[in-house]
Amino acid sequence: MKYAIGVDLGGTNIVTILMNEKGKIIARDKRATEGFKGKNHVLKRISEGIESVLGLMTHDSRLTTDVVGIGIGTPGLVDLEKGIVYEAPNIPDWDNVPLANSYKKRFGIPTFLENDANSAALGEWWIGAGRGTKNMICLTLGTGIGGGIIIDGKVYHGALGYAGELGHIALSFDGPKCGCGNTGCMEAYASATGIIKRTKALLKDRKNRKSIIYKLISGDLNKMNPAIITQAARKGDKLAIKIWKDTGFYLGSGIASYANIFNPEMVVLTGGMTGAGNLLFESMWETVRKRAFKGAVKNLKILPGKIPDDAGAVGAAKTAFQRTM
Amino acid sequence: MKYAIGVDLGGTNIVTILMNEKGKIIARDKRATEGFKGKNHVLKRISEGIESVLGLMTHDSRLTTDVVGIGIGTPGLVDLEKGIVYEAPNIPDWDNVPLANSYKKRFGIPTFLENDANSAALGEWWIGAGRGTKNMICLTLGTGIGGGIIIDGKVYHGALGYAGELGHIALSFDGPKCGCGNTGCMEAYASATGIIKRTKALLKDRKNRKSIIYKLISGDLNKMNPAIITQAARKGDKLAIKIWKDTGFYLGSGIASYANIFNPEMVVLTGGMTGAGNLLFESMWETVRKRAFKGAVKNLKILPGKIPDDAGAVGAAKTAFQRTM
Repeated sequence: MKYAIGVDLGGTNIVTILMNEKGKIIARDKRATEGFKGKNHVLKRISEGIESVLGLMTHDSRLTTDVVGIGIGTPGLVDLEKGIVYEAPNIPDWDNVPLANSYKKRFGIPTFLENDANSAALGEWWIGAGRGTKNMICLTLGTGIGGGIIIDGKVYHGALGYAGELGHIALSFDGPKCGCGNTGCMEAYASATGIIKRTKALLKDRKNRKSIIYKLISGDLNKMNPAIITQAARKGDKLAIKIWKDTGFYLGSGIASYANIFNPEMVVLTGGMTGAGNLLFESMWETVRKRAFKGAVKNLKILPGKIPDDAGAVGAAKTAFQRTM
Repeated sequence: MKYAIGVDLGGTNIVTILMNEKGKIIARDKRATEGFKGKNHVLKRISEGIESVLGLMTHDSRLTTDVVGIGIGTPGLVDLEKGIVYEAPNIPDWDNVPLANSYKKRFGIPTFLENDANSAALGEWWIGAGRGTKNMICLTLGTGIGGGIIIDGKVYHGALGYAGELGHIALSFDGPKCGCGNTGCMEAYASATGIIKRTKALLKDRKNRKSIIYKLISGDLNKMNPAIITQAARKGDKLAIKIWKDTGFYLGSGIASYANIFNPEMVVLTGGMTGAGNLLFESMWETVRKRAFKGAVKNLKILPGKIPDDAGAVGAAKTAFQRTM
């Protein structure tokens, strides 16, 4: 049996997983990233995670020589060939880091990088919601909206590795400003940031201050987050229900275009926001059905991710398998 | 040397091409479709085209047994496995036609179908503008806007063969009604139909009737077409220049999203409208540069098709090669 290690480097935590080639998770480590302590500290934290799962491996009298590779899913722009990361927004000083080479040297195991959203998509495809599909797209709904495109069981990277920025499809060319510089991107409408902005704008209207949302944040707009809006909606709050319904409409508009473009078997949605469940999914489906070609939606599945905590690390391990075997 | 025959079935003409496996065109036949005479007549016209290029082949003392396959690019929904076409809008009665089997029987040569826009994309990729690229998307700008996605030198079909409807990305969810039932599709803005509609609306304003366009159509709005608008723009007509500039903006908005999604090496634009040249391309590029990620646009090429008359038939021949060799 062959093994691979997958590392999911997040702004808050590092998840490290040891898997066998059949997709079974053998060992798992989770530790705080502590990015505020700087680049070298983060590099050390990644090492500790890898050492931890390797230790558990030998503990079970498995051979570390059966580990074919280490995969690292990282935020930022990734040079897949050279194994270097550039410009990760959430980790200070995380620019021009020759990640792959440093761990290859440290552990004597071939190491490969992948973008974090692509890793999550590949993880969900391998042993999560997308298992068994050939073509799948994944949207990671968080502070921003990331994406990954799986074609024939592999991540589609495009010419220079920048493909899959699925949050940056423009839903309306004269829509709200997006962090990327464009206007009207799906991210500007349907990310946590977008939802919070829209809700704040609505709460500026005094009439809306009767909303349960306003009570839950004790009038402090900085306390707002999607979970609070869900909480209010579950209590029947009209404003909160409307906000999720609108979000479903925006997501559905984007997914309708993606159905016409990719005719995928499945769209997987990951991230905490999927916890809103039907509050989000009903209007999303209604919009997709109304706007996409019938043929492109026939048989289409749109599902929340199945391995929310592990998708990134699992996909990173799969990356290591795919590039070595 | 192996050969294949490619057929491009259009609403007006049928183009049939015999090619060798190196991408050289050996023989070519073009004849009117005469769709108004019904399905059986069109089937006969296709046969005549194939017979014609086979005749030229034997004339050069090549062996017809070296023909590995026939590919047919057809409008409508195509069942790739069964070789059946459904619902082609421009040819009466062209529904549920078992095209592949009928020519396989007739000529004793394996026959394969492809959607017409996918064929054109594959043709441009093989020996046209996209030669040498790995990833390319193609937009066919005509009455509608079709599309094709080439990944690793093959057409990407998606789950059921409906992928690549690239004209049906919504640029604005509350935009003009599109023929597909959605609102704000790129097709509704930037197809010939969309351009003509916008121009007619502008000419309802009496101020705009000083436009050269109005003179060129002698005040008869039914005579309008994109070529006339180009003609007026070349004479410095401000309204006509604005119409092309707006069209470039709409196309550019869509292509910016496609750059973020696919990070393709190249976008190929085919169809008569590309004759507008810089009138269209300048504002299109300006919009793409402004709206897409810098990395996704770095090295990106956007080019008009190089084999406008033959792309569909060439791609159909390539389909036959790819499915048999």
